[in-house]
Amino acid sequence: MEKTSCLHFCFISCLVLFIIVGSWYRSSISSLPGYSLQTQKPIYHSAETPHHPLDPLTVKEINRVRTILSSYEPFSFTFPTIHTILLDEPDKVQVLKWRKGDPFPPRKAQVLALLNGQSHVLNVDLDSIRVTSHVINPRSGYPMLSMDDISAASKAPFSNAEFNKSIAARGVSSSELICLPPSAGWFGPNEEGKRVVKVLCFSNQGTPNFYMRPIEGLVMTVDLDTMEVLKFSDTGRDIPIPKSTDTDYWYTAQKKEPQMEPLNPISIEQPKGPSFRVEDGHIVKWANWVFHLKADHRAGLVISRVMVRDSENGELRDVMYKGFASEFFVPYMDLDESWYFKSYMDAGEFGLGMSALPLVPLNDCPRHSYYMDGIFATPDGNPFVQPNMICLFERYAGDISWRHSEGLLTDFQIREARPKVTLVARMAASVGNYDYIFDWEFQTDGLINVKVGLSGMLMVKGSPYHQAPNQDAMSGPLISENLIGVVHDHFVTFHLDMDIDGANNSFVNVNLVKERSLPEESPRKSYLKAKRKIAKTEKDAQIKLKLYDPSEFHMINPSKRSRLGNPTGYKIVPGGTAASLLDHSDPPQLRSAFTNSQIWVTPYNKSEQWAGGLLTYQSRGDDTLAVWSERDRSIENKDIVLWYTLGFHHIPCQEDFPVMPTVTSGFELKPVNFFESNPILRAAPAFEKDLPVCRPSASP
Amino acid sequence: MEKTSCLHFCFISCLVLFIIVGSWYRSSISSLPGYSLQTQKPIYHSAETPHHPLDPLTVKEINRVRTILSSYEPFSFTFPTIHTILLDEPDKVQVLKWRKGDPFPPRKAQVLALLNGQSHVLNVDLDSIRVTSHVINPRSGYPMLSMDDISAASKAPFSNAEFNKSIAARGVSSSELICLPPSAGWFGPNEEGKRVVKVLCFSNQGTPNFYMRPIEGLVMTVDLDTMEVLKFSDTGRDIPIPKSTDTDYWYTAQKKEPQMEPLNPISIEQPKGPSFRVEDGHIVKWANWVFHLKADHRAGLVISRVMVRDSENGELRDVMYKGFASEFFVPYMDLDESWYFKSYMDAGEFGLGMSALPLVPLNDCPRHSYYMDGIFATPDGNPFVQPNMICLFERYAGDISWRHSEGLLTDFQIREARPKVTLVARMAASVGNYDYIFDWEFQTDGLINVKVGLSGMLMVKGSPYHQAPNQDAMSGPLISENLIGVVHDHFVTFHLDMDIDGANNSFVNVNLVKERSLPEESPRKSYLKAKRKIAKTEKDAQIKLKLYDPSEFHMINPSKRSRLGNPTGYKIVPGGTAASLLDHSDPPQLRSAFTNSQIWVTPYNKSEQWAGGLLTYQSRGDDTLAVWSERDRSIENKDIVLWYTLGFHHIPCQEDFPVMPTVTSGFELKPVNFFESNPILRAAPAFEKDLPVCRPSASP
Repeated sequence: MEKTSCLHFCFISCLVLFIIVGSWYRSSISSLPGYSLQTQKPIYHSAETPHHPLDPLTVKEINRVRTILSSYEPFSFTFPTIHTILLDEPDKVQVLKWRKGDPFPPRKAQVLALLNGQSHVLNVDLDSIRVTSHVINPRSGYPMLSMDDISAASKAPFSNAEFNKSIAARGVSSSELICLPPSAGWFGPNEEGKRVVKVLCFSNQGTPNFYMRPIEGLVMTVDLDTMEVLKFSDTGRDIPIPKSTDTDYWYTAQKKEPQMEPLNPISIEQPKGPSFRVEDGHIVKWANWVFHLKADHRAGLVISRVMVRDSENGELRDVMYKGFASEFFVPYMDLDESWYFKSYMDAGEFGLGMSALPLVPLNDCPRHSYYMDGIFATPDGNPFVQPNMICLFERYAGDISWRHSEGLLTDFQIREARPKVTLVARMAASVGNYDYIFDWEFQTDGLINVKVGLSGMLMVKGSPYHQAPNQDAMSGPLISENLIGVVHDHFVTFHLDMDIDGANNSFVNVNLVKERSLPEESPRKSYLKAKRKIAKTEKDAQIKLKLYDPSEFHMINPSKRSRLGNPTGYKIVPGGTAASLLDHSDPPQLRSAFTNSQIWVTPYNKSEQWAGGLLTYQSRGDDTLAVWSERDRSIENKDIVLWYTLGFHHIPCQEDFPVMPTVTSGFELKPVNFFESNPILRAAPAFEKDLPVCRPSASP
Repeated sequence: MEKTSCLHFCFISCLVLFIIVGSWYRSSISSLPGYSLQTQKPIYHSAETPHHPLDPLTVKEINRVRTILSSYEPFSFTFPTIHTILLDEPDKVQVLKWRKGDPFPPRKAQVLALLNGQSHVLNVDLDSIRVTSHVINPRSGYPMLSMDDISAASKAPFSNAEFNKSIAARGVSSSELICLPPSAGWFGPNEEGKRVVKVLCFSNQGTPNFYMRPIEGLVMTVDLDTMEVLKFSDTGRDIPIPKSTDTDYWYTAQKKEPQMEPLNPISIEQPKGPSFRVEDGHIVKWANWVFHLKADHRAGLVISRVMVRDSENGELRDVMYKGFASEFFVPYMDLDESWYFKSYMDAGEFGLGMSALPLVPLNDCPRHSYYMDGIFATPDGNPFVQPNMICLFERYAGDISWRHSEGLLTDFQIREARPKVTLVARMAASVGNYDYIFDWEFQTDGLINVKVGLSGMLMVKGSPYHQAPNQDAMSGPLISENLIGVVHDHFVTFHLDMDIDGANNSFVNVNLVKERSLPEESPRKSYLKAKRKIAKTEKDAQIKLKLYDPSEFHMINPSKRSRLGNPTGYKIVPGGTAASLLDHSDPPQLRSAFTNSQIWVTPYNKSEQWAGGLLTYQSRGDDTLAVWSERDRSIENKDIVLWYTLGFHHIPCQEDFPVMPTVTSGFELKPVNFFESNPILRAAPAFEKDLPVCRPSASP
């Protein structure tokens, strides 16, 4: 492990161990501080009260929900398993009119629970202390897997005789096995009506990186409610378990120096401290930005009430009501019995927040970062703290905000340049093997840069090959001896409830169209023309990106005009991306049909937050963004939500073994005629006299 | 101007003034130091000698070229105007076998000159002191405009009676005018055989930002060789000159504070200094990378002989022989008499290096940057120094190289993360109004990230409108009173002579194809399959990117295999980009036909460096990459060059006024099966004890 700040690590790891595993985490946790970093005062979550209508449920509130549920009549016999307790956010109109000091709208919780194999969706009013609504099995699908589900399922194989015989035949001891229960997906009626998972196992002999040592072909279908092995399949007895050689990625395990000259220490330094403030636990204020930041069990990180200061009059103006990663679809491209079902929906099945472990100071986030905890519920309805789950830091990367220089044509030598300093909110989810890094980066010019980084381990496949055969025979390249990196995709669908200067917005497709000039009109034969078309209904806004039929995509406020008469707006600027190419009728694609387009726009509807449906796990695609959008509702000059899917095709390579260098892509939300002019025209350059004086190190 | 380091600024500005304007820069310049930054020793260029076969011509060598040309018989009567004197690089084979201490291959220069309206291409051997080849008008087109051309043409209007009448009618004094001579392009036989430019004028009354005050519709066609006004046109007398209000972007001119909370000082700090070394003036060594870096009159910045250390045995391995921006095509979308010709080829017409002014320390490049000068030739063949033209710095932006954390399934709590530190070589060209920032960023995992940033001023159009009318009537949005931001594109075409483990490489299209499963084969209906196809000839490698027919594009060495048998390779990973949509027969597109595809691969040919042809200015498209590629030469297992075009569509907005916040995009060159495994597996994390101790500021 890290050598750094051992005490801190011990503290955190004890805390985490205490928090997560099994069901030992009882009430005492809530009196422990969430973090103890140098510059940050510890927060005693047990004493916390909400300060804003969007603040997540506190430890006390989660306890109160549990109390309410305990005395709720339908649960008086058996308390359900709690899969999620989340703030049921007040109606948007209530949040928008709320001002600090005002009484709160009623605090409510949404509870996703499971009882006797049935999904229960409950709303609980914390003020009136009662369950206000309760629906059983509203649609196909179940709440996300709980830590108890995962923990129990990972143990299920060991009491199965076939399994034990199979691993014995491979010469593997059960003590060296680690099993994972990925979702079984949904593939038609055979396994419907049961919460099933597929259990896969790996050997951790000689390495903490068990992912690189799959017991290939061995897969069990397990009923999560009975822990019964419904189906056992072993098609891989002839496939050797890949060796542990060179799989360990721990720093302490590295025997050789890297083949490169060592780097001198380097750090982003702010001797006067960072320029942002976090008020009341969740309100972030920096430069010209104000927003609400919180951890979320499912989305990981939620940014709300994003406002930026007008560059002319200093007024705070609405930009985005709520932004978050709504779903994360990861289909693998292998039809084998032990592979076909690998098409994960990581947010709805496992929870990006649930999978987010504490960030590592100095390595996950730079010095001077501020850390924020997540407060979630355990399967028995108790609160637990996920410490240091989000970090917030100011970023200076040596980039240029704007510049111009001039030499020849004027009498003066112009050398104007401004350094770019930004604010980043970061969260990293470790959904089993993969690590997903989410960055929301705010620029002073009004741009929001959303980035997703992929790191961690590949989901690999054991193979008889030591040497790459004809690649066409395999579902991916050989990336180490006996290891195939199976081709797969990643799609992250973002919910972006843009409210440009207020809730009622329109979506405009600004299409660049080639026009031909008339004969004799010009020596030029062609030119591009930007043609604006306002989307009337949802189907007008189901967009597939096209390099040769390009558009800009604006969210505008048709009622708010700049002094020049341009509607104020923001545009979404895609970066490098990928589209899902699977058959629309293929079960994984049906369930993740929200990836059929890159862009969608829907009317705001509080119940349409999760692109794969509220109950995603084993859903049949009956509650996805694609289904909602097919209703083709009116979206012009309405409170509307923009959805963007960022995609990656991943053909693995040797460099991804045994841990992947981060691959990053993203998109931007960028002001268009939102400001009257460049909002950072008056920004100051950096001056030598203001910069810090540093000496080499803290140690003597 | 900057308040910072006033002395330094004065020094630089005096130097620059001395260097650039007119023809005063005579021989004494070469004894001046190129820069005088704190930590860097000044280099006295007059004493410099080359240390590497690829080193640019030194001051002494440029003087020698001039001497040789002076005594060259065809020039004995009249010395030509020198447009470029560049190193004529030795043959690749000579460079590859050269080792430090070896005698140099003969030093040669390529000279592009102009005499009596004719283009002269000469090769000069500095060792045998003679002109070895001399071709007149090899193809259509002329050498790039010289500073003298630009300077003279910008003065030409003032002696024209029609012009003076026209500006008087507008109530404009000639003393407030600044005129620019953008290229006239080429539009068929009417203006052929003459070096013509279009001269446009702007008012600088009340602002240094004259670009925002166009004298709309007034355009003169000027013969550069006679300075005769061939054609005068004024269609804009009714169009007011936009006001100077709020156009000034100088820091010293800002009267109001920005509407945001001030930011505390922030800096990338390296108290032990940066980890890179620059040896012999041009060889950069950092971490696992070694490359040759130089300034170039036309390309701006050239990276050569790029090698990375093998992560297993530490051997230096070839990655890229030469990489640079070969052409920069910027077509505007307006057919008006004073606009249709605006379709610039900035590298070949103006020179990205020629247009690169000194970088501003702390604002263009962070602290601890190393600065490198450019040494070019003036129109009379004398050397001049462009100081601080390139900067080189280590970049730490708080990003994560790789990470993995684990909590639930194992007995141990895993929290491994590694900070990402990179090396950036940067250059910024100010081609008139626009500023182009070029970054070549090297990562320790073998990835090269190439980024282009656009800032500076828009090329704007005067308009009678104060308020946005029906936008369809205009060639772009109203971005300020009486100012239209005309829609335009930017295309940067990179020459990437990849030599993966040696010169002979192949280009592989790894196409992801949807396959359908057979009935009963699987519960899955579809999956993707990666199909590799090696390009046999050039036409196989003319690639248009497609979101719904995606491929990876690999440059591999078919003779070099990893231990697993995978060919070693690099792939090009496009980021956000745009394609040119103009008619292929439209003159600007014909001349920039290298943008008809995003990717091309050609066999290595020393004469095929410039995508728009050696003589680009007023060329007719007879010497472009598209023409070369049509020969359809064999490219399999050959010394081949990869070309990539990065594109931007730019529909301006109010935020772009009066100076544009930087817009950035790029592409990556990424190892695929080049390393045996993740080359940064053994990288160390950052430790608190190693980080600097900083106090607020240098001033008391």
